[in-house]
Amino acid sequence: MTAAAVDVAALRRQARALLPAPSYDYYAGGSGSERTLRKNKHAWREVWLAPRVLRDVSAVDTGIELLGARLRTPVCVAPTGFHRLGHAEGEVATAEGAARAGALFVLSMRSTRRIEDVAAVLDAHGGTWWFQVYVMDDRELTAAMVRRAAAAGARALVLTADTPVVGRKRRDSDELEISDDDLLVNLGQVDPQQMAQAADLTVADIGWLAQVSGGLPVVVKGVLHPDDAVACVAAGAAGVIVSNHGGRQLDQALPTAWALPAVAAAAHGSGTGVYVDGGLRTGLDVLAALALGAQAVFLGRPVLWALACGGAAGVADLLTGLTSDLEHAMALAGARTVPEVAQLRLAAAGLPGRTGT
Amino acid sequence: MTAAAVDVAALRRQARALLPAPSYDYYAGGSGSERTLRKNKHAWREVWLAPRVLRDVSAVDTGIELLGARLRTPVCVAPTGFHRLGHAEGEVATAEGAARAGALFVLSMRSTRRIEDVAAVLDAHGGTWWFQVYVMDDRELTAAMVRRAAAAGARALVLTADTPVVGRKRRDSDELEISDDDLLVNLGQVDPQQMAQAADLTVADIGWLAQVSGGLPVVVKGVLHPDDAVACVAAGAAGVIVSNHGGRQLDQALPTAWALPAVAAAAHGSGTGVYVDGGLRTGLDVLAALALGAQAVFLGRPVLWALACGGAAGVADLLTGLTSDLEHAMALAGARTVPEVAQLRLAAAGLPGRTGT
Amino acid sequence: MTAAAVDVAALRRQARALLPAPSYDYYAGGSGSERTLRKNKHAWREVWLAPRVLRDVSAVDTGIELLGARLRTPVCVAPTGFHRLGHAEGEVATAEGAARAGALFVLSMRSTRRIEDVAAVLDAHGGTWWFQVYVMDDRELTAAMVRRAAAAGARALVLTADTPVVGRKRRDSDELEISDDDLLVNLGQVDPQQMAQAADLTVADIGWLAQVSGGLPVVVKGVLHPDDAVACVAAGAAGVIVSNHGGRQLDQALPTAWALPAVAAAAHGSGTGVYVDGGLRTGLDVLAALALGAQAVFLGRPVLWALACGGAAGVADLLTGLTSDLEHAMALAGARTVPEVAQLRLAAAGLPGRTGT
Amino acid sequence: MTAAAVDVAALRRQARALLPAPSYDYYAGGSGSERTLRKNKHAWREVWLAPRVLRDVSAVDTGIELLGARLRTPVCVAPTGFHRLGHAEGEVATAEGAARAGALFVLSMRSTRRIEDVAAVLDAHGGTWWFQVYVMDDRELTAAMVRRAAAAGARALVLTADTPVVGRKRRDSDELEISDDDLLVNLGQVDPQQMAQAADLTVADIGWLAQVSGGLPVVVKGVLHPDDAVACVAAGAAGVIVSNHGGRQLDQALPTAWALPAVAAAAHGSGTGVYVDGGLRTGLDVLAALALGAQAVFLGRPVLWALACGGAAGVADLLTGLTSDLEHAMALAGARTVPEVAQLRLAAAGLPGRTGT
Repeated sequence: MTAAAVDVAALRRQARALLPAPSYDYYAGGSGSERTLRKNKHAWREVWLAPRVLRDVSAVDTGIELLGARLRTPVCVAPTGFHRLGHAEGEVATAEGAARAGALFVLSMRSTRRIEDVAAVLDAHGGTWWFQVYVMDDRELTAAMVRRAAAAGARALVLTADTPVVGRKRRDSDELEISDDDLLVNLGQVDPQQMAQAADLTVADIGWLAQVSGGLPVVVKGVLHPDDAVACVAAGAAGVIVSNHGGRQLDQALPTAWALPAVAAAAHGSGTGVYVDGGLRTGLDVLAALALGAQAVFLGRPVLWALACGGAAGVADLLTGLTSDLEHAMALAGARTVPEVAQLRLAAAGLPGRTGT
Repeated sequence: MTAAAVDVAALRRQARALLPAPSYDYYAGGSGSERTLRKNKHAWREVWLAPRVLRDVSAVDTGIELLGARLRTPVCVAPTGFHRLGHAEGEVATAEGAARAGALFVLSMRSTRRIEDVAAVLDAHGGTWWFQVYVMDDRELTAAMVRRAAAAGARALVLTADTPVVGRKRRDSDELEISDDDLLVNLGQVDPQQMAQAADLTVADIGWLAQVSGGLPVVVKGVLHPDDAVACVAAGAAGVIVSNHGGRQLDQALPTAWALPAVAAAAHGSGTGVYVDGGLRTGLDVLAALALGAQAVFLGRPVLWALACGGAAGVADLLTGLTSDLEHAMALAGARTVPEVAQLRLAAAGLPGRTGT
Repeated sequence: MTAAAVDVAALRRQARALLPAPSYDYYAGGSGSERTLRKNKHAWREVWLAPRVLRDVSAVDTGIELLGARLRTPVCVAPTGFHRLGHAEGEVATAEGAARAGALFVLSMRSTRRIEDVAAVLDAHGGTWWFQVYVMDDRELTAAMVRRAAAAGARALVLTADTPVVGRKRRDSDELEISDDDLLVNLGQVDPQQMAQAADLTVADIGWLAQVSGGLPVVVKGVLHPDDAVACVAAGAAGVIVSNHGGRQLDQALPTAWALPAVAAAAHGSGTGVYVDGGLRTGLDVLAALALGAQAVFLGRPVLWALACGGAAGVADLLTGLTSDLEHAMALAGARTVPEVAQLRLAAAGLPGRTGT
Repeated sequence: MTAAAVDVAALRRQARALLPAPSYDYYAGGSGSERTLRKNKHAWREVWLAPRVLRDVSAVDTGIELLGARLRTPVCVAPTGFHRLGHAEGEVATAEGAARAGALFVLSMRSTRRIEDVAAVLDAHGGTWWFQVYVMDDRELTAAMVRRAAAAGARALVLTADTPVVGRKRRDSDELEISDDDLLVNLGQVDPQQMAQAADLTVADIGWLAQVSGGLPVVVKGVLHPDDAVACVAAGAAGVIVSNHGGRQLDQALPTAWALPAVAAAAHGSGTGVYVDGGLRTGLDVLAALALGAQAVFLGRPVLWALACGGAAGVADLLTGLTSDLEHAMALAGARTVPEVAQLRLAAAGLPGRTGT
């Protein structure tokens, strides 16, 4: 008997053995001294939970409703770039795995497969997907991509808000090779300046994206400060993802487990969803995140390791396994449904207080 | 001179040398990454106490009254399963040891000796015992066991509330062998589904057990959240045991030392007793538990090591030794009686705050 | 240039090389797992201070007035037993060293030199001394000792309050040899039961000792809980020493640095002095203790190491050196006098909160 | 790609290889057990920040206005002594490097180059500089130095307040050689007593220095306690530098990262500037300091390593690189200007509370 259905650390080691070093390092690395990268993981493990007992948990349901879609699990696939670095089928395989597990898939604008091809496999497997947007200096180019995603069936947009400039990662290697065919499969021939991310993004872009997309809900990714959550709510965001970009942008940014409760409190009652990513590796981590106020969680690197090791089946197994581990943990914690995890108001020790200056 | 009468770590090492590895691992292991298993022990060692001085401690009495019975010590034997894995005489030996030390014995429903045989040895030595209940899917089978225990002289029932599903333990081995003779000595021939634990337990089962047993007091084991303590009090529980099942159910559940004060506060003044188990290894740990609000403590694994190493005599020596160490520590702390330990309101540092989400 | 005039760790290592192991271990050891022994030292090092600046510190005075006596330093010699284990001249040498440094000497009832011989050397060097009392089962024997000390010139009594029973120390060796000549030099031939410490001490004994001694002030040693400080004040104690007996009684007792602020607050304004011992090794530690509310500090083991290494001169050098280091630290902290250290109300981080149960 | 433009640890190792050991140790060492020296650095790394998003950071400006002067960066050069120990050109090279980077240079009274020569190179490169003052026992000698600095163009005075006596540093070596030519290049032939620092400094000396200098603003360096900040404000200080003298004065003084918020709060709204030094090594550290309330930061040892390794160019590269790293971090944090970093009120976890005694 094993202690859990999923062992992400083993999967990561296997992926490291399979992948070229520059690809592995590109996925694995964080910015600066990688303090946030490391703390993201440890912070979940420092959360101590008070399970509830004597609740009828003979039927535990991990399903959630997310922006109108029913999903079998609150474990979602975070947007990550360049999946063909990890597997020849790239995003098509990842998307198929997610769909087979009943999990939300977020397609990155940096997809190395055509948006329409990914959408087709998702349709074939009844998958739900969102489209992640880096607003580029060339806004018309950005809008064109958004319109294509909307036309292809994306149910929401994820606006990445935390990359006005790119974090500096010491593991990044000059030997990382991404062919133009992969890099530009969706953009076509553009010059680098057009592709550069816009540094002048503001909350007004939430409305702009909604309008450009013909009314898709917009979820803002990269919120750590409760005041930013308030601003996103006011600007009409459908959700916020508490994220520090996997420790790849500002080093010494708060681990997401510490940032989550205050953001959840700030958005409480607004109707705007609160989600989280960063360092989640086990069903227990997911339970902790739900207990601290998230309505769903997003996983990045673990999905990439699963993709590298097993393609679509690997991704499906990972997400199904984590969901099974979550289901088991929910029963042990006395929670029958995902919303009930938060209603249970599990007591947690180990979260540091926050001090404004 | 040694620093204490009892050295549980040495006893554990001795037991490990004596026992088949699968049996040792079955006893020793915890669920998941064993975080709660480890933290249970460490948490007691992080409690710093402020002893009281200039109190006449020429007569220190470790005796307690527990649900109407006088006991020589607040150190009780927690219910644990399958004692014949540790010693050929199984629960009969453990019970005799407890009775000889004047300590409460809790017989597990997973006893590998007949309830009546265990009761007989307890009677012979003037022992007090309670009977632990896993409510099974087959409630009539459960009720039959409860009635047998009541008829045999159990003074109370301990309802295990924290196992709607079974925790997954990585140390569990396929090579662990428990014969059907041992496993079914009390149940007789039943099919596995009948024996499975019910996942639909609620506080209403407290009353059901009391009724089925002909009025025995019911103690709920596995309470970590103060709101659950309140619910148990309201449902007529005679006591609650603050427990995370020895770190064998939800990993990252609060260590019991951290959970105890809030549960004790929640039950304060209700007449419902508050007890604790998990990681207690020394007389000092027992003193800390009493100071943090427990009226008695339960030990699991240390009793199993003592049983494996020395049978009934080993168990009696362990419990007598711990009680002697407790008595010494009470004198040093300025407490003459067990209730006085709590009245002394020892100041304690090192308990983290609890934060709801 | 060295960083400080005194290096107690080096002195300890030198003493360990000089002394028979049983003697060294008797001095060095603590009770139980020696948690309090270790934490006592570390706790001072976790106190971070906010020095004051732009104060005229051209004249810094380390002198204090203690129960009517002027002393050149707030660094006092704690009562410790059996000095002839460390040096052939025993307490006579220690007392001479203290007197030469202008420091208070507290003579233990377990002196291995006659009270009158120690008093004589103190008189010769203008020393001030107090007499430490273990109240024995034979109270008349106790009273006789107290009267002798008073007649010999003791200025106060130190009532040891934290040893109703003796702590169990794993380093204690059966090979420790103290001759009856040494052990009974002051008591004469008595049977062991007479010498045993009374376990029925109460605050009423403060008044009894004062009366027996013809009116000497009584200082209670071993107070960690603020409520005990309040009781001592009410019973007429002239002072309390925040102490856990150097980690030799209740293990997991609060380190004295953590206990001090609450005791100082409890005694504030009462006229009863507050002193501290336990783990102090440097002039900085002394500064921290004064900042946290102590009016004087007591050192035990460091004095024994100095005695073993250098006799009276060694003790004098230690106390003079620590006083010099304290004087330097006071100037750096902006404090001109010992009382001013407390008035400065140095901010300190790192003290954990205290939680009643 | 590297994670940052500047790697101070590598620079330090390179300098250690280049410099005579006594010179390196003189620069690198701290007082006592070097606890404050170490904690200064670690404290910045324990500050977790909550960046802001969706703010237009297409134009980030690191420039500040400091006592009327425009500077390109809030990274300033702290006053440190004896630069000819590190580089033959001494302070002239350091000053040139600072000026080329658009950074404030603070010239130490312990300059090993003539004040007027340093001023000349600063003028040539458009640099801004302040003059650091140790008030000496011979106040007329002090006044003469101040007048020379004012005449040479110093824009402000920095009064070192934390050295009424000199900290004792175990790394200080008798073999450190500073020639009289270097030592007395500005003082001329004086006797040691005249040069000794005054221990009787008070806040009144702030006004005295202002008057002696013909009205220069006076910044007090060495403030850790908020009450001292209040006193400096009341005495007319133009600014305070939160500093523990780089861990070279009172050991166990608060790390400056912990002291800064309370000092900033005490001075808030007064018009008196709040700056900080101590342990800052990266652009992220600078960002944290600005977020915790500093309007500028000062670096000591890193500048000395850069001077030793690369002279004026090395210093310029260090300051330019740190400013570039800061600019990058500001964009990631959503701050367009230095004052905005504080206005953003970045949440920070990890700062311990402060407890008065």
